[in-house]
Amino acid sequence: MTIIARFNDNRLGVVQGDVIKDVTSVLDRLPAHHYPLPTHDIFIAALPELLGAIEGEADKAEGIPLSSVTFLSPVANPGKLVAAPVNYLKHLEEAQTDPALHHQNQIATIHRAGLFLKATSSLVGSSHGIEVALPDRRTDHEIELCAIIGKRAKNVSKEEALEYVAAYSLGLDITIRGPEERSLRKSLDTYSVLGPWMVTADEVPDPDNLDFSLEINGEVRQRANTRDLILGVAELIELASRFYTLEPGDIIYTGTPEGVAPILPGDTLHASIEKVGEFTVEVRAA
Amino acid sequence: MTIIARFNDNRLGVVQGDVIKDVTSVLDRLPAHHYPLPTHDIFIAALPELLGAIEGEADKAEGIPLSSVTFLSPVANPGKLVAAPVNYLKHLEEAQTDPALHHQNQIATIHRAGLFLKATSSLVGSSHGIEVALPDRRTDHEIELCAIIGKRAKNVSKEEALEYVAAYSLGLDITIRGPEERSLRKSLDTYSVLGPWMVTADEVPDPDNLDFSLEINGEVRQRANTRDLILGVAELIELASRFYTLEPGDIIYTGTPEGVAPILPGDTLHASIEKVGEFTVEVRAA
Repeated sequence: MTIIARFNDNRLGVVQGDVIKDVTSVLDRLPAHHYPLPTHDIFIAALPELLGAIEGEADKAEGIPLSSVTFLSPVANPGKLVAAPVNYLKHLEEAQTDPALHHQNQIATIHRAGLFLKATSSLVGSSHGIEVALPDRRTDHEIELCAIIGKRAKNVSKEEALEYVAAYSLGLDITIRGPEERSLRKSLDTYSVLGPWMVTADEVPDPDNLDFSLEINGEVRQRANTRDLILGVAELIELASRFYTLEPGDIIYTGTPEGVAPILPGDTLHASIEKVGEFTVEVRAA
Repeated sequence: MTIIARFNDNRLGVVQGDVIKDVTSVLDRLPAHHYPLPTHDIFIAALPELLGAIEGEADKAEGIPLSSVTFLSPVANPGKLVAAPVNYLKHLEEAQTDPALHHQNQIATIHRAGLFLKATSSLVGSSHGIEVALPDRRTDHEIELCAIIGKRAKNVSKEEALEYVAAYSLGLDITIRGPEERSLRKSLDTYSVLGPWMVTADEVPDPDNLDFSLEINGEVRQRANTRDLILGVAELIELASRFYTLEPGDIIYTGTPEGVAPILPGDTLHASIEKVGEFTVEVRAA
């Protein structure tokens, strides 16, 4: 098990307890690239070969207190952010009954709605903060388990799907309410939070049994367990890879449970998920 | 005016009449990049500074017959593919009345539906061909004018929006019919065709007045003019940049007119658009 973070000025680190070890020198093993650039994440693709060196460097490095660093998105160059809509039954129910959520649109089950995309330009680490951009629209929090794809996957069955996961992380799928397609409303700059780090998949043998919760200003708003996912991580990979090729670094936001509610500039969000991690995120105006 | 193509094994070329001039050596002016890689297209971002050298090299190079080359997507590393749904009134009407198109979903106007995303992993050049992947589902052609963003754009007004366009190209937004969100149904591998080249924006002062048409096996299926766009190119950029930052290389698929219909393996599509270009694309099974 290795906890890998990107921090400060594009440093690479390993988290051990309450410190981070700087292992940036390992990145020298990645080749430079000329145009056209690779369309997948070259670090995630190389992770299996780099893990030994990462752990070796971590053993030698001095610890930097976690509280002193700025966390970037643990994935730098995802080709796509795939996300699951209405993937918890109780969230489906609230979305179907609350006009502020459905905006006179049909709310289909995930079996009808399929998956959607979030713009990669919306991705930030947990230290960046969320910038609420359209103050006349309602912006909601959605906490989600995220799976980071480790190797190319096309037409993968759910039985073998978890072999394609490199790591897990904690995500917020920030959402503007309104009538537009999800791929627009969930793609504003800073509206895809990922962090604070990623945990290699060996630490999470059963991603479909993890407690998680989200608090705003100290008050619990969402609390659930990934066992209530309608489509679990393996089934989401099976579904996605039937439609398109998943590449190293692609991130799957697995969906959010009930309890979604508005966030406002000045709010502080605290999110945590068992075995994966926790972070605090500030909300401000864009 | 310059017509720029990517061809064969990542060669860069300038199209002049019925030949292409190899100007790949100009790419030596682009620096190599280490991880983390830029998240925008570094060639499109540098195009204003490279154009002089590109034209100088083209003057010296020998012409290669267009008929002998393989065209790649003229944009290699788009950060996102933004697309406009139901952006022609007559296509909105056919989508609202034909059950094979709406699949019991509401079909909203573009003012309600906003924009959607297509996966960058679905992008291919015109020589690649379209691979129909789910033969039990209906797959349709949609011909569209595409605008390639040249510089970072956020909260751009429609009055200044066209200054942010580097070039135009011809696109096919290939689409599976069904109940899922557009960002899934339009993101299968090979379902975003772009090509055969891009034409610098100075050649297309009014992108909202271009005749275009699509034929399948010699029969005209779609014929329209971009003046019938509900939201023109400038308004689409204004709308998109209100939600998220557009980066150099981002591609805007502007929407398709009426006449969408199924394509099948073995079909040959011919698409053309005034002042921008034309290509022939083969359809095969995945």
